Amino acid sequence: MKPSVGQAQKQTSARKSDMETRLQEDDHHSIKLWLRLLTCSSLIEKYLRDKLRDEFDTTLPRFDLMAQLQRNPQGLMMGELSELMMVSGGNISGIASQLVKEKLITRTALPTDGRVFVVKLTAAGAKTFLKMAKRHEEWVIEALGQLQQKDIVQLTEKLGYLKDAVSGVCDT
Amino acid sequence: MKPSVGQAQKQTSARKSDMETRLQEDDHHSIKLWLRLLTCSSLIEKYLRDKLRDEFDTTLPRFDLMAQLQRNPQGLMMGELSELMMVSGGNISGIASQLVKEKLITRTALPTDGRVFVVKLTAAGAKTFLKMAKRHEEWVIEALGQLQQKDIVQLTEKLGYLKDAVSGVCDT
Repeated sequence: MKPSVGQAQKQTSARKSDMETRLQEDDHHSIKLWLRLLTCSSLIEKYLRDKLRDEFDTTLPRFDLMAQLQRNPQGLMMGELSELMMVSGGNISGIASQLVKEKLITRTALPTDGRVFVVKLTAAGAKTFLKMAKRHEEWVIEALGQLQQKDIVQLTEKLGYLKDAVSGVCDT
Repeated sequence: MKPSVGQAQKQTSARKSDMETRLQEDDHHSIKLWLRLLTCSSLIEKYLRDKLRDEFDTTLPRFDLMAQLQRNPQGLMMGELSELMMVSGGNISGIASQLVKEKLITRTALPTDGRVFVVKLTAAGAKTFLKMAKRHEEWVIEALGQLQQKDIVQLTEKLGYLKDAVSGVCDT
């Protein structure tokens, strides 16, 4: 909106008010972006959670834990695993115990330090995980299926800038 | 890449292989977008969790629960609250019990149905929440502070398309 003549005459107070307005707008934009980002990832995450439960009777933290072990076939120390897990909210050592009971992973103490435990996928665990991972990919493709290919690529690029920008501040 | 003359001659098999390649590329792009989206929101979420813990000795699910009540001053039934909570992983009725104990919320049975409980912020709860919410906004602005204003606005718009596209598939 262009300032009216009356507004332009009140220059000093107008400038001050612009800066305040600007600040509030900036705030508003950042918060709006964060809430939208959270909404988008929550929507997809919920979809994946529901599918994992319905098709495999399992949870996202369980899936995430097994995904980390599949990417690290040499095994991971429990501490490393906690750091790598992207999906929060799970009690990692509780989930690991359950997976051990189901023979999907092994958990063994380090020979050099009996207090440090290393977890690894079993052959059965790897097989189960691959089945879930294949469906998981299909669900993600389904979830984003309404988007045009070029929008997907563009958005990925722009989120790359966001990731870099945020990493500098948040990853400390 | 332009097809070579030799490739153009093998038209039938080339077309088949292009479709397969394309499908794989599409898959790859969707998965990449989802993982990037998840990484971005996890980074910011972790930052906010850490700040809430360090400055207020509280958790994101507690904050999220109080935020929902602040937006709904008439109170919410426990079922409504569960549906509204964006941050998963918390045991909502456990968190509510703890907040009741700390006199930050009240939980009362409906006069018409003793099995249905309504939760509401107390005056002390509202005051505590506003303090946290102010800092929460500042942290979000900090986290996104390295981004240019125009990138924030653009990204918010593009995530709006994503949200609409994903809602159609996931919100069922």
